Amino acid sequence: MSSVPLPSSRPALGLIGLGAFGRLIAGPLARHFPVLAHDPTASDDSGIEGVRLTSLAEAATCPIVVLATPVAALPEVVAAIRPYLRPGVLVLDVGSVKVVPADVMRRGLPAHAAIVATHPLFGPQSAQDGLRGCRIAVCEVRGDRSRRVAAFLRSALSLDVILTTPEAHDRDAAASQGLTHLIARAMLAMEPLPTRMTTRSFDLLMQAVEMVRHDAPEVYDAIARANPYAEEVRRRFVAQATRLTTDPVQERDRAA
Amino acid sequence: MSSVPLPSSRPALGLIGLGAFGRLIAGPLARHFPVLAHDPTASDDSGIEGVRLTSLAEAATCPIVVLATPVAALPEVVAAIRPYLRPGVLVLDVGSVKVVPADVMRRGLPAHAAIVATHPLFGPQSAQDGLRGCRIAVCEVRGDRSRRVAAFLRSALSLDVILTTPEAHDRDAAASQGLTHLIARAMLAMEPLPTRMTTRSFDLLMQAVEMVRHDAPEVYDAIARANPYAEEVRRRFVAQATRLTTDPVQERDRAA
Repeated sequence: MSSVPLPSSRPALGLIGLGAFGRLIAGPLARHFPVLAHDPTASDDSGIEGVRLTSLAEAATCPIVVLATPVAALPEVVAAIRPYLRPGVLVLDVGSVKVVPADVMRRGLPAHAAIVATHPLFGPQSAQDGLRGCRIAVCEVRGDRSRRVAAFLRSALSLDVILTTPEAHDRDAAASQGLTHLIARAMLAMEPLPTRMTTRSFDLLMQAVEMVRHDAPEVYDAIARANPYAEEVRRRFVAQATRLTTDPVQERDRAA
Repeated sequence: MSSVPLPSSRPALGLIGLGAFGRLIAGPLARHFPVLAHDPTASDDSGIEGVRLTSLAEAATCPIVVLATPVAALPEVVAAIRPYLRPGVLVLDVGSVKVVPADVMRRGLPAHAAIVATHPLFGPQSAQDGLRGCRIAVCEVRGDRSRRVAAFLRSALSLDVILTTPEAHDRDAAASQGLTHLIARAMLAMEPLPTRMTTRSFDLLMQAVEMVRHDAPEVYDAIARANPYAEEVRRRFVAQATRLTTDPVQERDRAA
């Protein structure tokens, strides 16, 4: 793979990881940056216009480096890119949780690297009609680059940006993503479920289940295990469901 | 209230109950039948074009009698209308479960009454844009009128008709309605839930919750308690959710 400079005055963006999510954002990013992508499992051609495959070393020397790897692989990836990062580099991740990745990046990346942790609240299913209006959480971890990142995500990618902290993000995501995945997985384990004798509300529930049915196992792993608030939310939900199972109309009787 | 004959050659339809559901169907029915409605809590004017309020006795003497009352009130209503039913009458109910109401009507209504049990799988929320395409389950209980009823519901009201049995209906509804209401009620008990840090799948889940949030308590009562298969479905769901809470990635580890 050659190292010929790309014909652009825009800073190059190194994209580490071309899984389902990396491939989803590579194209839109390539309309704004020369994208140098690295994925050990990718073939010679990225198949995405404006995205050139390269070595980990070359991708990690870009002024902007996006880590699109599973949360569980982040410590290893951070250690691998560390030697190649240039002064002033901006490193971002895209994991479904934020407390653990922010901590991993803060500890593992050199002091000269600015760090912004992000969680795009969308995926290949929910963004199949494009990124416009999709939500993304953005957290400053080190440096002062988060507002410029947010401005770019808003103006260039038309994303709905939520500026937040890793802790606030994980607390909310434990409920929204945690409950969705818990409920979806419990329902999938009960299949076959009715497809015709259904109400509109059950159809909506099953649409939600369908959206996460094919999520990579790593996504569920992160949501269920790497979010420090996830287990408590699961326990609260199961406690409520158990109460309603034992005494289905307790609430009403109490109110009556 | 007068007993002047209605200016129509169509048979009159007696509608017992003008609650949320009775009011939803009274208008569409009144475009095909003179509708004589009875509700002890209704005022002098139904407020619905073509729907005249009347006594229980007069409503029950119509050739078609629709019982739009809570499932729990059905034994009492069946006993109350019994003396007024004319030979050849067709009685229908609209409850969310079918095994218990079919049994109550079979035992409580005179042998000369044909009986069709129905479950409209929609309500004021899901049918707010009209009945077209909404689903309804139809079960023959006594006589041979269900196919004519189905034909009317299809052609006149544009409903999607599912001809079934009370047992088959309740088995499916235990999963579709039972799970929707169990999940919705467990989630409502966990409020406040995130409204911005959400994914598309969580938004769909919350749309489902919103649709049942304001359901009459009697609806949940029927779904949760009067469906003979509901408790088993709740127990299976809670068992799956508990397993996922204790060991969130068990499934994946087992597959790996």
